[in-house]
Amino acid sequence: MIRRRGTLFVVSAPSGAGKTTLCREIRLRLPDLAYSVSVTTRPPRPGEIDGADFRFVGVSEFQAMLARGEFAEWATVHGNLYGTRARALEDALATGRDVLLDIDTQGAAQLRARYPDAVLIFILAPSVKELEQRLRERRSNMDADIERRLVRAREEIALWRQYDYLIVNRDVKEAMEQLESIILAERCRVVRLGLTLPDLEVRN
Amino acid sequence: MIRRRGTLFVVSAPSGAGKTTLCREIRLRLPDLAYSVSVTTRPPRPGEIDGADFRFVGVSEFQAMLARGEFAEWATVHGNLYGTRARALEDALATGRDVLLDIDTQGAAQLRARYPDAVLIFILAPSVKELEQRLRERRSNMDADIERRLVRAREEIALWRQYDYLIVNRDVKEAMEQLESIILAERCRVVRLGLTLPDLEVRN
Repeated sequence: MIRRRGTLFVVSAPSGAGKTTLCREIRLRLPDLAYSVSVTTRPPRPGEIDGADFRFVGVSEFQAMLARGEFAEWATVHGNLYGTRARALEDALATGRDVLLDIDTQGAAQLRARYPDAVLIFILAPSVKELEQRLRERRSNMDADIERRLVRAREEIALWRQYDYLIVNRDVKEAMEQLESIILAERCRVVRLGLTLPDLEVRN
Repeated sequence: MIRRRGTLFVVSAPSGAGKTTLCREIRLRLPDLAYSVSVTTRPPRPGEIDGADFRFVGVSEFQAMLARGEFAEWATVHGNLYGTRARALEDALATGRDVLLDIDTQGAAQLRARYPDAVLIFILAPSVKELEQRLRERRSNMDADIERRLVRAREEIALWRQYDYLIVNRDVKEAMEQLESIILAERCRVVRLGLTLPDLEVRN
């Protein structure tokens, strides 16, 4: 039996679409899914844990990692740098583990180019109005920040056709079920299975 | 908003893989899924209802339907004729309903040619040994019949790579979850969505 290589599940969404909650929840439901912790120069938000939510680094450290070619993808989002270390990804994939990544549209496009069989999932709020309302409810956001996020959200929304799957997050429970279904279904895809059937063609 | 066209979900499996149980169960779980009732010349098994499980017809009636071009696919399986009427399929798809079909590998290949975006799902027992045991437990089967089914099963198993998804039915609950996931996930596929986003690009 040839060991199946892992699959990359890349989740992107404009701020306020509910991506962070969905990614946190799916990791609880599917604990065999590895999670790629992004490196970022953005300061931690309250409650965020270094090494678990993000790896928080200074700009010069990020630039040094970039210069050493450590990133599978990297991007500037709202003035902060974000990146995914290639080594961690490759290690997980090689051992057959599926990996969940929570990254922006620029990073997703880079990963698609590098890993053509990655599964790209886009999450949207049901409307821009709803998105704005959710951003305003996040008390940590300033008005100017909200405007900037909304402008960017509109740009990102226009990219939905570059993704494999679209989840419209009207209801968290339904959106969770869709995200889980996408992962479980992709694991059954014939193109992702090895060259031989594990049991049937061997036994008997 | 452009109405989404329905998707065909075609399920095939060698006898004994558990396909009939899974198809019955998924229709209960997803009642919005239309079911394509096959026309067949095989005699009803105990408990089977004409018009619900199959439409049971005589050979001459089947041949008349065939001559009138009524079938989207048809095949001979274990000496009996089976067919799917195109009209019922087209009507459901046009109104945006997804359709479940439970048909053999020959029919699945014909449907793929006619509807390239059909989703083909293959269900297997975990081993040929297990398949044989399940067939023997079905008390309605004669020994000669079992042998014939096993020969055919081996032929069919060789075709698994022509399918989009493979479900190895080790456990009914897990297999059900996989079948449901495949249907829910396919409904989120960007390539199956209309040309415009229903809400996001219109509102606000």
